[in-house]
Amino acid sequence: MLEELKKRVYEANMLLPKYGLVTFTWGNASEIDRETGYFAIKPSGVDYDLLTPDDMVIMDLEGNKIEGKYNPSSDTPTHLELYKAWPEIGGVVHTHSSYATSWAQAGRDIPCYGTTHADYMYGDIPCFRVLTKAEMDEGYETNTGKLIVEGFTSLDKDPMAVPACLCKNHGPFTWGKDAHEAVHNAVVLDEVAKMALRTELINPQVDRAPQNIQDKHYYRKHGANAYYGQPGLN
Amino acid sequence: MLEELKKRVYEANMLLPKYGLVTFTWGNASEIDRETGYFAIKPSGVDYDLLTPDDMVIMDLEGNKIEGKYNPSSDTPTHLELYKAWPEIGGVVHTHSSYATSWAQAGRDIPCYGTTHADYMYGDIPCFRVLTKAEMDEGYETNTGKLIVEGFTSLDKDPMAVPACLCKNHGPFTWGKDAHEAVHNAVVLDEVAKMALRTELINPQVDRAPQNIQDKHYYRKHGANAYYGQPGLN
Amino acid sequence: MLEELKKRVYEANMLLPKYGLVTFTWGNASEIDRETGYFAIKPSGVDYDLLTPDDMVIMDLEGNKIEGKYNPSSDTPTHLELYKAWPEIGGVVHTHSSYATSWAQAGRDIPCYGTTHADYMYGDIPCFRVLTKAEMDEGYETNTGKLIVEGFTSLDKDPMAVPACLCKNHGPFTWGKDAHEAVHNAVVLDEVAKMALRTELINPQVDRAPQNIQDKHYYRKHGANAYYGQPGLN
Amino acid sequence: MLEELKKRVYEANMLLPKYGLVTFTWGNASEIDRETGYFAIKPSGVDYDLLTPDDMVIMDLEGNKIEGKYNPSSDTPTHLELYKAWPEIGGVVHTHSSYATSWAQAGRDIPCYGTTHADYMYGDIPCFRVLTKAEMDEGYETNTGKLIVEGFTSLDKDPMAVPACLCKNHGPFTWGKDAHEAVHNAVVLDEVAKMALRTELINPQVDRAPQNIQDKHYYRKHGANAYYGQPGLN
Repeated sequence: MLEELKKRVYEANMLLPKYGLVTFTWGNASEIDRETGYFAIKPSGVDYDLLTPDDMVIMDLEGNKIEGKYNPSSDTPTHLELYKAWPEIGGVVHTHSSYATSWAQAGRDIPCYGTTHADYMYGDIPCFRVLTKAEMDEGYETNTGKLIVEGFTSLDKDPMAVPACLCKNHGPFTWGKDAHEAVHNAVVLDEVAKMALRTELINPQVDRAPQNIQDKHYYRKHGANAYYGQPGLN
Repeated sequence: MLEELKKRVYEANMLLPKYGLVTFTWGNASEIDRETGYFAIKPSGVDYDLLTPDDMVIMDLEGNKIEGKYNPSSDTPTHLELYKAWPEIGGVVHTHSSYATSWAQAGRDIPCYGTTHADYMYGDIPCFRVLTKAEMDEGYETNTGKLIVEGFTSLDKDPMAVPACLCKNHGPFTWGKDAHEAVHNAVVLDEVAKMALRTELINPQVDRAPQNIQDKHYYRKHGANAYYGQPGLN
Repeated sequence: MLEELKKRVYEANMLLPKYGLVTFTWGNASEIDRETGYFAIKPSGVDYDLLTPDDMVIMDLEGNKIEGKYNPSSDTPTHLELYKAWPEIGGVVHTHSSYATSWAQAGRDIPCYGTTHADYMYGDIPCFRVLTKAEMDEGYETNTGKLIVEGFTSLDKDPMAVPACLCKNHGPFTWGKDAHEAVHNAVVLDEVAKMALRTELINPQVDRAPQNIQDKHYYRKHGANAYYGQPGLN
Repeated sequence: MLEELKKRVYEANMLLPKYGLVTFTWGNASEIDRETGYFAIKPSGVDYDLLTPDDMVIMDLEGNKIEGKYNPSSDTPTHLELYKAWPEIGGVVHTHSSYATSWAQAGRDIPCYGTTHADYMYGDIPCFRVLTKAEMDEGYETNTGKLIVEGFTSLDKDPMAVPACLCKNHGPFTWGKDAHEAVHNAVVLDEVAKMALRTELINPQVDRAPQNIQDKHYYRKHGANAYYGQPGLN
């Protein structure tokens, strides 16, 4: 069932070590099929070297396992909350990629310092607080997802315009229209996080990029007046 | 038409990911044929994995597309301005290479701290301001090119002696006698940017390299009294 | 004798350069067979390129060489002390991996800043003092082992909950249930050390991760209520 | 003539890009045959990709080219001065390796912060001043060599105990009993330089490693009482 989806999710997961975003089993990618409401996700704690498309686990949006011989990623309830709240997204990725995780550990939003950031993400990347013990006891991974969703709502951010966030003392989540785009955004996020750290080391008094250059680059690639890339190509 | 030029520009573009200077499609190289006044440039937003020499786009110096099935790089008008203003250059490269872009985001010129820098570039690498909204609305990429040209004029810098600059909150441009040399200079720039950051971390009070060692190394490799390398070899 | 053990220790040693943890011969891994009380360890100062399983040296816990054409690693007495004091461990690794060694040179414990650390190691990674000249003269490597064991006792840390430490001005030791797990922990340690440095650069006033997120992640993977990974899989 | 020497020097030069110590043509290795007094060195500015053993240039200690179709490295007179002054050395290497060059640009000696440094180099790595304009005009590369030799004499350092130095605003030189060992020391130097920077970032008030641990590690590997490695093996 959903063989094509499992293959796509497998391939997205395999890109994570290829891009240097995960060490050992520290990451997971999923993608949802909006027609059936099922999503496929990596199994928990299985070596990337041993993964096959068939190992992907199929879940529904109530958190039931529909198919798969393994337990799904322990972060599955977080993916699920994002899929439920945001119908426009189709893929979710979690990693412990080194630079983004360092910003998460530092507990800081990543300021928009330039066009590499603005080409993909409109404004700062938010870093959300640690859950309370009570929230963790009630459901750590589910409440992590709810926190992210509520955070975007309260900041009035569009998750498709800022397809990434940090969870304090933990690490990044990214998303996109499918699992492949979520992986792409995870690569962008770590590169942006790396350059933001170096930018501050070079100039500790640095300001954010002026709004007009952020707007110019974001809207050069997104929306009705975009002119980057090829018409009809992604 | 201009098959050799397209092949050279293709090869120069393919060196950018090989040297670790670009992620995804974040870069472009071009080269001009001064006889015809045509230049070849990478198409916009096409994956490096999929590029072929035939995908290169041929442009004239009025900004007309002469040949090619794709749209040219969105940065094409910047390349064009540099070719128009500086007849001595034959190739231009733009990247978001990590260290040079971090200096651009920090909004600082790269000071000349040593001979690695002075062997290739005479004096500091300038970082130019962000365009105003009005300048962007009028023509972002064209005015970026004009800003670079005017910057070199007002600083009285020879673009062949300093074949690189930074655009604030954006990233680096480099150039040279052909596309291959422009790529070479992009590699040098990022290495120099990396070492300049580390130099300041090791010694926050560091001064620029004394003028006599800058002169010695620059003129050991350039000009009538150069003695580095082999006579007749490049 | 103990062919399987020598093969396992050989393979663990070969993982050290593969993971980028050792340059030249700067590391060693060992594993003990608790039935015989013999352990296998890398020979001293032999290039990784030239190692074979047969080159591994078999030692007993009194420090006698049981088998092997080479001298064992000069750090053998340190491994031996850890095996004698901690019956629950089965493998030991020493490296000069770059980030962990930098923390050791800085003489600081590595604070627990996030879940990457807490997933594997419960609380800070201790950095132990330099031995006195008298302690060195008496037996440098043996007393290094004793210092580590006494350090864990006086800090009331469980070596299986914190399977790593730093020796000031020297470098890290890690351990685990076998040599392979000790290597795994050496990789985790260097990654954690890298992110801790970057975390402090991003936020010099950063605090440790709250205790509840450390507990949540450590106990999600360890102990009776663990739910990370697959039942029956390691 | 001296085919074996040229082959050895070729191989040592090829290790420099392999270990990540040189970009483009920014490095050179040489080795001397003390019987004939001839040394072989890399030609100036020739791509590593194109080098062959036959391209190595044979020089004598008066600076005459004995054999070779190319000009020798522009740094040849520096190598020559070291060979003349220090009969115990057999190989010399110059690179612009990133971390060592950053310390040279910062104008600081590299303090001995730990055993990775002390295993190979006894005490701090000195950074020597920039030559005056008069000294450069008289003979830049020759006087660079003389400065290094005089520096070791005035610091009363044994070049075999500290087989490395930095030239301010330029980069490192290393040496050893042959070209291969000089390359080995160049790798060690850059690793030590990297960890020293990170050590100071982790602890800006850090002190040098205590003398007793420096002594212990240096003499564990060097001199009559060494016990690291295998008897009869290098």
